[in-house]
Amino acid sequence: MSAPRFKRVVIAGLGLLGGSLALALKRRRLARRVVAWGRNLGRLKPALKAGLVDEVSVEAACAAGADLIVLCTPYDRFEGQLKELARVAPRGCLVTDVGSVKGAEVARWHRAAGPLRFVASHPMAGGEHTGWRHAQAGLFEGAACLLTPLPRTDRGAVLAIGRLWQALGMDVALLSPLEHDRLVGRVSHLPHAVAFALAAAQAQLGPAGDFAWAGKGWFDTTRVAGSDPDLWADIFLHHPRRLDAPLRAVETEIRRLRKLLAARRRPQVLAWLDKAARLRRATEQCRR
Amino acid sequence: MSAPRFKRVVIAGLGLLGGSLALALKRRRLARRVVAWGRNLGRLKPALKAGLVDEVSVEAACAAGADLIVLCTPYDRFEGQLKELARVAPRGCLVTDVGSVKGAEVARWHRAAGPLRFVASHPMAGGEHTGWRHAQAGLFEGAACLLTPLPRTDRGAVLAIGRLWQALGMDVALLSPLEHDRLVGRVSHLPHAVAFALAAAQAQLGPAGDFAWAGKGWFDTTRVAGSDPDLWADIFLHHPRRLDAPLRAVETEIRRLRKLLAARRRPQVLAWLDKAARLRRATEQCRR
Repeated sequence: MSAPRFKRVVIAGLGLLGGSLALALKRRRLARRVVAWGRNLGRLKPALKAGLVDEVSVEAACAAGADLIVLCTPYDRFEGQLKELARVAPRGCLVTDVGSVKGAEVARWHRAAGPLRFVASHPMAGGEHTGWRHAQAGLFEGAACLLTPLPRTDRGAVLAIGRLWQALGMDVALLSPLEHDRLVGRVSHLPHAVAFALAAAQAQLGPAGDFAWAGKGWFDTTRVAGSDPDLWADIFLHHPRRLDAPLRAVETEIRRLRKLLAARRRPQVLAWLDKAARLRRATEQCRR
Repeated sequence: MSAPRFKRVVIAGLGLLGGSLALALKRRRLARRVVAWGRNLGRLKPALKAGLVDEVSVEAACAAGADLIVLCTPYDRFEGQLKELARVAPRGCLVTDVGSVKGAEVARWHRAAGPLRFVASHPMAGGEHTGWRHAQAGLFEGAACLLTPLPRTDRGAVLAIGRLWQALGMDVALLSPLEHDRLVGRVSHLPHAVAFALAAAQAQLGPAGDFAWAGKGWFDTTRVAGSDPDLWADIFLHHPRRLDAPLRAVETEIRRLRKLLAARRRPQVLAWLDKAARLRRATEQCRR
């Protein structure tokens, strides 16, 4: 399959993902012109100066003549933005997003996009740093991208958007929006929530200065707890009940460990650790 | 300060740490001859063949003529090994260890070491892989090493052992054995326990194959859950009550998050995430 070539790509929201997408599209010569659409011209202009994008705008009208639009804003703005874009972008223009949650919203986004060809995407890349100044052209390479088309989604558009992410080095898979949310809740949101809880507990347990003596274990285990609280409040509140049972399962395991330790039962402690280590190693086998 | 030079170094237990120590001593020309003392000659011989050490032995007598002995075995064997060594090693020979727990045992180890000059060390380096085949000469570089001398420990020996770890690229600090255990419980054992609990919970939640779609978040958060269960059973059971309160603090924070989500309270969810992210970032400032 040949890589897609776009004439005019509009990126809505120039953060870590939007900025990295701009870099990656340029680096791989997939876009002739990249436009950043935002709300604050003062914050967009340095990106123009830095050569990250070719044009910046605070008007949806910048999507006139676009052949690809990628929403890199918080997901609760997608509906409004898609309605605006539907009025100005060319009929049939490809539109996708980089949001971490899908669910029932995908149908709403389709309706809002009207005559544009919308395909929901979730490139599973990111980092604990925010903002386009941390953008990396290689952010998407080797990672997974989940597309969540509906039965009515234009098949040609699904193929084109899939080829776009593949051209950026991603492994693409199709899932239903609900299966996507279940899977991502398990493999991504739950580890984030537990890392945040561990860091929150440490805030009570003593001074941060103790961590001058911390090794890689602490820094890796809690790396994602340094992520953007605003973004994660949105993600966690998208399905406020989805994490309830998984989080309770973690509480149960912590309680179990406490009890085994209190009872000084080495064989049971060992069996418990062994089960955990085996699961961790099994997931390593699936690592891409 | 000039780096120490040893004529004959005995490493008891040739695992990841013992093997890395052998490599590092050779690489930095700190030891003329490195001897691995173990229990199973068949398992030691490949390390001799690989050139990792100059000599292998299953007899404590290999410590005759040694000027440095480093215990890299599980800590519950230290006492017996020190008694054996005290009979064969030269009077005043420097002895240290790489164990993760100290506490009241340090005084016992001193007694067992008799006329040898013992100084307890905890180089805070390691990894989820075990065995000398994963040894790295740079394992200790840039990491912290905590020494836990007693008031009666020979000052010259403390200096010499401190210089040894410094020569391997480590930052050395002195702490009492109890303060060491409190600190390490907080910055190392607790993150390990939580990572194990997260992995244990995942073993109930669905197939490991789901993690083909996991990003770096999962793999980093649980990296240490792939560590050696035997080693961690020993560490956790050393002070079976020490982790109880910290683990309960993590349970409390998980429960708090569940309640805030169930109540759909965005400002409170955001404040909770923000507190956690701020603690995490404050610890990053202390990172060496």
